[in-house]
Amino acid sequence: MARSQFGPINPRAPFIWHGGDYNPEQWPPETWDTDVALMQQSHFNVATVGVFSWISLQPEEDRFTFEWLDTILDKLHASGRAVCLATPTAAQPAWMSQRYPDVLRAGDSGQRNHHGARVNFCPNSPNYRRLAVNMATRLAERYGRHPALLIWHVANEYGGACFCQTCAAAFRGWLQQKYGSLGELNARWWTPFWGHTYTDWQQIEPPYANGERLTHGLTIDYRRFQSDSMLECFKLERDALRAITPDLPITTNLMGTYPHLDYRAWAKELDVVSIAFLHDLNRGLKDGRPFILMEQTPSSQNWQPVNALKRPGVLRLWSYLALAHGADTVMYFQWRRGRGGCEKFHGAVVEHGGRSDTRVFREVSTLGAELASLGATMLGATTPARVAILFDWNNWWALDAAIGPIQDKAYVATVRKHYQALWRRNVPVDVVFSDSDLSGYDMLIAPLLHMVKPGLAERIEALVARGGTFVTTYFSGVVDETDLAFEGYPGPLSKVLGMRVEEIDALYDGQINHIVMADGSGSYTCARLCDIIHSEGAHVYATYGDDFYAGTPAVTENHFGDGWAYYLASDPEESFLDTFYKRLLAAYAITPLLTTPPGVEVTLRQTERQDLLFILNHNPAEATIGLPAGARYADRLRGQEISGNLRLAGYDVRILALARAP
Amino acid sequence: MARSQFGPINPRAPFIWHGGDYNPEQWPPETWDTDVALMQQSHFNVATVGVFSWISLQPEEDRFTFEWLDTILDKLHASGRAVCLATPTAAQPAWMSQRYPDVLRAGDSGQRNHHGARVNFCPNSPNYRRLAVNMATRLAERYGRHPALLIWHVANEYGGACFCQTCAAAFRGWLQQKYGSLGELNARWWTPFWGHTYTDWQQIEPPYANGERLTHGLTIDYRRFQSDSMLECFKLERDALRAITPDLPITTNLMGTYPHLDYRAWAKELDVVSIAFLHDLNRGLKDGRPFILMEQTPSSQNWQPVNALKRPGVLRLWSYLALAHGADTVMYFQWRRGRGGCEKFHGAVVEHGGRSDTRVFREVSTLGAELASLGATMLGATTPARVAILFDWNNWWALDAAIGPIQDKAYVATVRKHYQALWRRNVPVDVVFSDSDLSGYDMLIAPLLHMVKPGLAERIEALVARGGTFVTTYFSGVVDETDLAFEGYPGPLSKVLGMRVEEIDALYDGQINHIVMADGSGSYTCARLCDIIHSEGAHVYATYGDDFYAGTPAVTENHFGDGWAYYLASDPEESFLDTFYKRLLAAYAITPLLTTPPGVEVTLRQTERQDLLFILNHNPAEATIGLPAGARYADRLRGQEISGNLRLAGYDVRILALARAP
Amino acid sequence: MARSQFGPINPRAPFIWHGGDYNPEQWPPETWDTDVALMQQSHFNVATVGVFSWISLQPEEDRFTFEWLDTILDKLHASGRAVCLATPTAAQPAWMSQRYPDVLRAGDSGQRNHHGARVNFCPNSPNYRRLAVNMATRLAERYGRHPALLIWHVANEYGGACFCQTCAAAFRGWLQQKYGSLGELNARWWTPFWGHTYTDWQQIEPPYANGERLTHGLTIDYRRFQSDSMLECFKLERDALRAITPDLPITTNLMGTYPHLDYRAWAKELDVVSIAFLHDLNRGLKDGRPFILMEQTPSSQNWQPVNALKRPGVLRLWSYLALAHGADTVMYFQWRRGRGGCEKFHGAVVEHGGRSDTRVFREVSTLGAELASLGATMLGATTPARVAILFDWNNWWALDAAIGPIQDKAYVATVRKHYQALWRRNVPVDVVFSDSDLSGYDMLIAPLLHMVKPGLAERIEALVARGGTFVTTYFSGVVDETDLAFEGYPGPLSKVLGMRVEEIDALYDGQINHIVMADGSGSYTCARLCDIIHSEGAHVYATYGDDFYAGTPAVTENHFGDGWAYYLASDPEESFLDTFYKRLLAAYAITPLLTTPPGVEVTLRQTERQDLLFILNHNPAEATIGLPAGARYADRLRGQEISGNLRLAGYDVRILALARAP
Repeated sequence: MARSQFGPINPRAPFIWHGGDYNPEQWPPETWDTDVALMQQSHFNVATVGVFSWISLQPEEDRFTFEWLDTILDKLHASGRAVCLATPTAAQPAWMSQRYPDVLRAGDSGQRNHHGARVNFCPNSPNYRRLAVNMATRLAERYGRHPALLIWHVANEYGGACFCQTCAAAFRGWLQQKYGSLGELNARWWTPFWGHTYTDWQQIEPPYANGERLTHGLTIDYRRFQSDSMLECFKLERDALRAITPDLPITTNLMGTYPHLDYRAWAKELDVVSIAFLHDLNRGLKDGRPFILMEQTPSSQNWQPVNALKRPGVLRLWSYLALAHGADTVMYFQWRRGRGGCEKFHGAVVEHGGRSDTRVFREVSTLGAELASLGATMLGATTPARVAILFDWNNWWALDAAIGPIQDKAYVATVRKHYQALWRRNVPVDVVFSDSDLSGYDMLIAPLLHMVKPGLAERIEALVARGGTFVTTYFSGVVDETDLAFEGYPGPLSKVLGMRVEEIDALYDGQINHIVMADGSGSYTCARLCDIIHSEGAHVYATYGDDFYAGTPAVTENHFGDGWAYYLASDPEESFLDTFYKRLLAAYAITPLLTTPPGVEVTLRQTERQDLLFILNHNPAEATIGLPAGARYADRLRGQEISGNLRLAGYDVRILALARAP
Repeated sequence: MARSQFGPINPRAPFIWHGGDYNPEQWPPETWDTDVALMQQSHFNVATVGVFSWISLQPEEDRFTFEWLDTILDKLHASGRAVCLATPTAAQPAWMSQRYPDVLRAGDSGQRNHHGARVNFCPNSPNYRRLAVNMATRLAERYGRHPALLIWHVANEYGGACFCQTCAAAFRGWLQQKYGSLGELNARWWTPFWGHTYTDWQQIEPPYANGERLTHGLTIDYRRFQSDSMLECFKLERDALRAITPDLPITTNLMGTYPHLDYRAWAKELDVVSIAFLHDLNRGLKDGRPFILMEQTPSSQNWQPVNALKRPGVLRLWSYLALAHGADTVMYFQWRRGRGGCEKFHGAVVEHGGRSDTRVFREVSTLGAELASLGATMLGATTPARVAILFDWNNWWALDAAIGPIQDKAYVATVRKHYQALWRRNVPVDVVFSDSDLSGYDMLIAPLLHMVKPGLAERIEALVARGGTFVTTYFSGVVDETDLAFEGYPGPLSKVLGMRVEEIDALYDGQINHIVMADGSGSYTCARLCDIIHSEGAHVYATYGDDFYAGTPAVTENHFGDGWAYYLASDPEESFLDTFYKRLLAAYAITPLLTTPPGVEVTLRQTERQDLLFILNHNPAEATIGLPAGARYADRLRGQEISGNLRLAGYDVRILALARAP
Repeated sequence: MARSQFGPINPRAPFIWHGGDYNPEQWPPETWDTDVALMQQSHFNVATVGVFSWISLQPEEDRFTFEWLDTILDKLHASGRAVCLATPTAAQPAWMSQRYPDVLRAGDSGQRNHHGARVNFCPNSPNYRRLAVNMATRLAERYGRHPALLIWHVANEYGGACFCQTCAAAFRGWLQQKYGSLGELNARWWTPFWGHTYTDWQQIEPPYANGERLTHGLTIDYRRFQSDSMLECFKLERDALRAITPDLPITTNLMGTYPHLDYRAWAKELDVVSIAFLHDLNRGLKDGRPFILMEQTPSSQNWQPVNALKRPGVLRLWSYLALAHGADTVMYFQWRRGRGGCEKFHGAVVEHGGRSDTRVFREVSTLGAELASLGATMLGATTPARVAILFDWNNWWALDAAIGPIQDKAYVATVRKHYQALWRRNVPVDVVFSDSDLSGYDMLIAPLLHMVKPGLAERIEALVARGGTFVTTYFSGVVDETDLAFEGYPGPLSKVLGMRVEEIDALYDGQINHIVMADGSGSYTCARLCDIIHSEGAHVYATYGDDFYAGTPAVTENHFGDGWAYYLASDPEESFLDTFYKRLLAAYAITPLLTTPPGVEVTLRQTERQDLLFILNHNPAEATIGLPAGARYADRLRGQEISGNLRLAGYDVRILALARAP
């Protein structure tokens, strides 16, 4: 989907931002000049300051100590660095918890936490909100016109949930707003089950661990409510900043409105493909607008069971991976390792020794210089995709809550499995959401679309009717947005899919069935869940090979309007997806950007004038890629022209530019 | 043990009940006629209604809304269905928790739960008891004479435990009743250990997680007290119902006085044999009286990690399995899948789609018709057994609490292991309890009889003295009913067994010893625990093969009166039990009902006039069974006469009737 | 390190104490005479009484019942037994928890426990302290001059932690004492991280589970504070006892000031080597003074998942193992198995049956007689060692708290791995601590010396400078005593080691690297963590074989003063340590006491007149040991002279004496 190029994040800084988190308040002022000098040496040009600094800026309710921050901003500016200034509101000061206990979050039994950790505030606490907005206002007043300031960063990694009485009361209000009447709420939450009908709003409580956890409409709504509550905190600060500095961009990490808990849960299973997917998802959150890569580690993490170092070259490779998928920045957590605190063994540009003669510092500096050499050319470049894959947090929550037919629904893994089949083919993909504009896509893939929100089925029908392709899987079309089962699956997707589900069989670990292609082209294994389905007009594309439902449909293909809709009734092996998507893409003449050996990825970013092909070798060994016969590219990183065979060292990256026909 | 035939559950419904849970209050009234029509179509003739419906019947303390239930009962009756009417007291309404917090259960730290889930009431709460009895009374008054009503069902799956202050106070009273004096309690609980002597009744508390968990006399008594408290709730409702409807039977699921927690823990490991065992246990709870199979799934469960569908034919097979072991009903959870709630993916006769053209609906309907064709002939039939296996919940609790000599005592698995050796031989077995009448049995098997309650040893001695056989195992005869160790094991069983235990060795996973038969007939492996024992008169039947106790007794046989008592000092491999029980049974001329291939089970139910052989093929493949030469049976399901070789399709069932010599 | 011989524990009992825990208050008085008779029969000559007996001695605050204890002490004395009298303060009576709730410990959420279990008192509770001291005083007054009394034992197994408000307040005082100012505390704890700076002492709380757990300076200090608080309880009782009985020794189990939690965590992984190590550690706690083996099981434990019996001979073998490593006693938990309580299946000298014709009773009796035959000769004998291995609890806690670079730091296993290499060579080792006197050692091994306390580096430098050898490993020299990272590793050890660390790589399970010896003598595998290091003067002793840091130093050797310091940058396979330590020991002519087959251990204890070689065959099979040519020993256990080849039955032990050249 071709778009015109976006502008830079801040027109005053028209280059790829290279920087990261800097917490000078943890060190004595003597260190600061050293830091700035080392930043200059390493082309670290945007420092994120202020994260968690509340107590350093406001040691008492009526006393403010901005002087050290003044000094830092001035020093950074004097040396040509710019600043991403964070509001410090992700960790309230101890005096605030002491004076206003309502700012403390409560755990899932309803008991108030003690002060400590971070993101330990109640998002509905009036005192927290008042004091946070006040701090944001003062920061905007004091620094809004500082020449170093490029962007605001609000708080940090919103997430988790609070179960206090303030939240309980606010939740009731939120529900009244949403459902209007108790009768409607009881109906949508199916409360007559186990006699859970509410007869008074006051009876509704948060889903306490020792309370009501089994009314899934409630548990899902509480997650939405908490997400909304934190978004409200963000908005209150954002509006306070915007009122004073209307021209400055405002962000939080991740950008967007989704709680970072999601991001964190994903991070546990990070590999190259999932990083690629995550970048595509970040880009999708703002419908294709380039995103800010806010915090990557320059060397290792510390919170995993085993924290291996990034191998030489991998920091550079993964930085370009982000740029290749739509980032306009390369930023690190963290500039300098703290001497204490629970992240003191997290990787940093500057290690405890404070030295610049380290491998990591050298890699960061070299990369910084290289990024600087790229200038502004690719800023705001778009990443055109004709294929979209749908991801939805509410759907994830509903799958997580569902008891049966199999415990581990593996939503994220399943979405990634489909994504990966396209990634292996070097086909650009957008990650979209239930409310995204689907009008620009030829193909929409929605694995495990268990919850179908109002209007989505109609928009899918429109996509297919105009000649597009829709793919979904087993256990889709099962519940509506309040987790109420449709009376027959796949619910509102039945029309476009032309089939229905009768039963769902669950397979034990190690147990398989087979998908036998109707055209005689072979068979594939499948596992986990097998929907037993009936065609209601759809062509039977493949059947099951085994068990009492052998011979019944396993994959259906429905011609609807000018397009096609597919239902994969089970979870197939990867080679099925390779073949399946190859066929589907061929129908739209969607071809790989380049054909590459395994582990070599190609992505495309488009500016108004040229196509930029990112070629990334994720293998430690050299790889050779044949460029299209006759095509001549400008190698942006080496400044030379290139054609024919491209040899790429292990972990190496190229950016090949091709002028666009106007 | 031959008994005369029992009467039907309710003489007004002299047929095999086929039905299950029906919660119409979850659906709009428009659905009700459809339900009734579908019930008629599927021969679903007894609907259990009212379970969990409290809030729907009493939305405020002073307001009752029985009208919908009137309609349901009338509709069911009009279409020829009957009703099992449940009191709705397993889940109190939210207004009750709100108005009377004492009805809420407290968790094991003593903190009161929030409202939610189910069976979340304090069984000693005066308000709960008052309101539950009131509801039962009103139901009896309103529906006691309704022509559709066949039976009362009280609450649902009593279980769990409450740790609130009301319970703590009641527990002290219960203990005073039981022990009379603190001195006696201190002695029985061995409280001087770690200086835990009580000097004031008020010092005794429930076994809080953050309190006293290591005085096992206390923890076991608290489980008994909670069981008694819930039984008291049952009795209060039962008495209220009985006062008004003295002629109606009253049940709860499971029938009997044992908390369902037990049942639930078992359900985790269900296989065919354990289901058979469970049915025999259910029958044993009422000393052989046929039981009500109350809730089986027609297709799949939802709460297991993987919930496979019952294969075609398995629903029928397992239904007859229940009848074969003494059930007089085949009932399901649930009639129709709820659209919400935590069981919305649990199997049901009617799926979310509401269709009757499904495999499950067809199987239910076909089975219903077949059951109807059987009429009343087998109702109340007895299941004669000359072998009994002893199971005791208190013993289980004591084994669970015991610290050492091995952590996993595997009580249930060990009982089932012995049961299975008899099941494999098609020998009928009764499950009995410590207080059961043992006078009708030739053989009593009591694996892991760790706790020996007063009087049991004497009754075992009587059984053996009159020519019977008693079998027990390692770690038996160790504690009395207050968990106090006997001064020498096997305690009161020493006399009948003629041996004593010196030490208990525990073997690591994968480590084995051998049981070497004294008659030279071979040796078998054994594992887990090895009692090192001395004969005090018993014949050494087998010795250990290995380790420093090689050559010492592993199995002893004691001639006592006219019978024999066996001690298996270790846990043998299955083939030992096959040989061992084959020999023992031969001594009593107890022969298999039929000799069958593996996986084909035969059971017997006797009416006053005939023997009914149930032949169940648990294999997916066909099996052939040779019937006794010359015997001619009436095939009850096919309505034909049969003799010679019987070929049984995979999962198929036969009921062969043979007239009894009068 | 040769020392002069120590005196016996109590000069009035100049023999090897053989006895253990005796709780007569759990039995009726009728049993007591039997007990005493059986003790006489088994040479059980020192009974520990009073442990946990508080409620039996003080059933109400103002009522004392010492009479039964009078009787016990008199009976024991009359039969020639002696007494280790415990203060009963490890478990407060129920009346005390009832009357003074502040004596109850609070869990890690700050909620007060219920009464129960043991060591469930708040160590800072004024009421607990007052009542404990009062009890100690009364015991001293009543029994201080009793002829049976040999030693005081205070409480039992101090451990765990309390999180109550009393402790919170005391903790603040402890911190003020330690840090002087909040500014200093904030700096040492690096509180500006995540904005955790304290501005009021009242803001500091214990590290609640739902509070501040990530400020590691706080969590480590809280463990120190709790340890100090319990030590204070010990001291208060000790001083009360000492004031009245200044000449009686006073102990607690373990002796010393360290919480037994440590001991318990270790016990989980006990094998022969770890038992040997633990004995050496116990001896080290009092700088080489013989220790009291207080509680070993005569047969089996009960709290492990599988509790195997000690094989015949193992009780004797392990008892001599303790003596071989510096114990002067052999004492058991427990004399007689309780009939109830959570340890009723723990091994005991007298089983539930109360019999003396058991294997265990016979083994205990035979051992008792043998110990008696040894008389006083070895009492107070020293265990000379020229090699020390450093263990430090604070270091352990810091490693446990550290997040990254690998989760499982395996501190204890790593220390034992180095210890084991020396144990396999029959080289005596002392376990020392960060504050031990190092002046007598040729070699100091400090694996994983992550936390380096003030002054330690200087004392290590002194050891090396005077010709000694120092060995440390990866991840050492990283933090100071408040867990603040040094600005460059290995911090204060850099000077003596002559190298520095740049990065730390973590290897996944199963992943390895290689240590390639610089002298061409071969290579070894290494795993887990690989420090990437630079020599700053040290000789590169070995390099890495693989990965991007292949060829960089893996082991360095620095000549410093007259000695050498080694840094092992990764965790090597065992054979590396064998070779490595063989070389190092050779440089000091430290040779094995004897060369033995695998599994045969030799230790040395020296009296003023002779060397006592303990030869222990840990194998179940016979082993042959060649004694030094020409040496003639007196076999202390067999009373004969021996030379040449010694044949030792499985699990057998010899004590060979050699007169010392004066």
